[in-house]
Amino acid sequence: MKFKRSERLIDMTNYLLEHPHELVPLTYFAEKYGSAKSSISEDLGIIKETFETRGIGVLQTVPGAAGGVKFHVHVGEKEATALIEDLCTIFASPERLLPGGYLYLNDILGNPAILRKVGRVMASVYAKQDIDAVMTVATKGIPIAYAVAGFLNVPVVIVRRDPKVTEGSTVSINYVSGSTKRIQTMVLSKRSLQDRSNVLIVDDFMKAGGTINGMIDLLKEFNATVAGIAVLVESEETEERLVDDYTSLVRLSNVDVKDKKITVSYGNYFTKNKPTG
Amino acid sequence: MKFKRSERLIDMTNYLLEHPHELVPLTYFAEKYGSAKSSISEDLGIIKETFETRGIGVLQTVPGAAGGVKFHVHVGEKEATALIEDLCTIFASPERLLPGGYLYLNDILGNPAILRKVGRVMASVYAKQDIDAVMTVATKGIPIAYAVAGFLNVPVVIVRRDPKVTEGSTVSINYVSGSTKRIQTMVLSKRSLQDRSNVLIVDDFMKAGGTINGMIDLLKEFNATVAGIAVLVESEETEERLVDDYTSLVRLSNVDVKDKKITVSYGNYFTKNKPTG
Repeated sequence: MKFKRSERLIDMTNYLLEHPHELVPLTYFAEKYGSAKSSISEDLGIIKETFETRGIGVLQTVPGAAGGVKFHVHVGEKEATALIEDLCTIFASPERLLPGGYLYLNDILGNPAILRKVGRVMASVYAKQDIDAVMTVATKGIPIAYAVAGFLNVPVVIVRRDPKVTEGSTVSINYVSGSTKRIQTMVLSKRSLQDRSNVLIVDDFMKAGGTINGMIDLLKEFNATVAGIAVLVESEETEERLVDDYTSLVRLSNVDVKDKKITVSYGNYFTKNKPTG
Repeated sequence: MKFKRSERLIDMTNYLLEHPHELVPLTYFAEKYGSAKSSISEDLGIIKETFETRGIGVLQTVPGAAGGVKFHVHVGEKEATALIEDLCTIFASPERLLPGGYLYLNDILGNPAILRKVGRVMASVYAKQDIDAVMTVATKGIPIAYAVAGFLNVPVVIVRRDPKVTEGSTVSINYVSGSTKRIQTMVLSKRSLQDRSNVLIVDDFMKAGGTINGMIDLLKEFNATVAGIAVLVESEETEERLVDDYTSLVRLSNVDVKDKKITVSYGNYFTKNKPTG
């Protein structure tokens, strides 16, 4: 079965989008479509240019016998600004304020279209690093972690507050919650993370950063390194921040639960990263 | 800025894949690319055919002034069989068996490539129904629920075992666990599900079905209807099943924790659904 260029372009686009961060040899496509490698090369040139001009991502060409192409997500300033603006508008609604200065986020965390955009933006920041896994803590961080991991094509590792029978044997640590100063426990299934992994920590909400600090401590137990920390929302109300090197999309300040007032502004995304395009 | 057909095909493919189940008017593409509607129509014809022959999905054309095109995922028998075969092989490893007859699933539930396939297959079963939301229970069901919801483009609603401060006000019910016969509680944030929604229930593991029955009861509190029930794995060891109308991808039987033996076979996916292609 022979394929026309138009059919190849559509099918290759789908394949590359479904296999981000995966090196695909030219011969894979050449055999799939029964085409010459020179035709596939031309196809990939067209896809590469369209992906870049349309802000879909970057198609990296790896030369040599073991070479091929690799798609990775890339978000320009325009797309990132549009998302962060939208998030600021959504978060500014005073009905979101809950007792304790927390925000109601379930609707945002439940919306696959918003999550896809958040995943694209966060993954884009770390797309050029060699990340082995994305780690988060149950429950709220999970959807964001999967959205990011999908674009980086790496596994998600979920830390829990309590061990469950379905986890197998676990490693547990104690940590001090930054806001309440209480001692808490978090556990991670032993089988779920390989020794010496390079791990991106992702969470929905950061106040003082105690939970994230706990995850950093837990990573040490696995001889793992922290590739980065990305949070959807940071709350500025706290005096001392336990974590300093992180990327946030949105920042809350002046949280006034009594009068139901809140100030929402851009997180440090644009100061930490210099997006192009 | 004018676009060539090849560029339009690539960009439209990306757009349609990113917006499943969304009616896109032809004028949207015509304006985006500065092209005549007749050219866009031809482009869509090529995409439709390629999507169908390559097993990517279905491009539905809605005629009339309010019309347009809608992409929905469609999985043929070959793709579904390949996934289910793979899952059976993965699950058959005796090291997965945990005390109580549970299976260690974290690695599978953490793998975005496998989840994407599971999401495609499950979403394909319900793609023609009008589904308003996907519901699951924390924690293990969450990644599968998001994988399915992403392809159906509907929100995810997460039921919890315990209320949290970040949920706002909640509705709670008691239910009897099918396996242990213990009374348990589950809660759902009031704001997270609209009245009279049509809801697809998704979970990772079903033994007797007590948890799923609990979710069905909880849906009644929201005047919601059950559009369907989809589970990754069902365990056959139980005498009485509390739930009967469901789709499973894999079935476990003869679970022998002592001798670390287990029989893995196809779930009822192929008997419940008649996939084509």
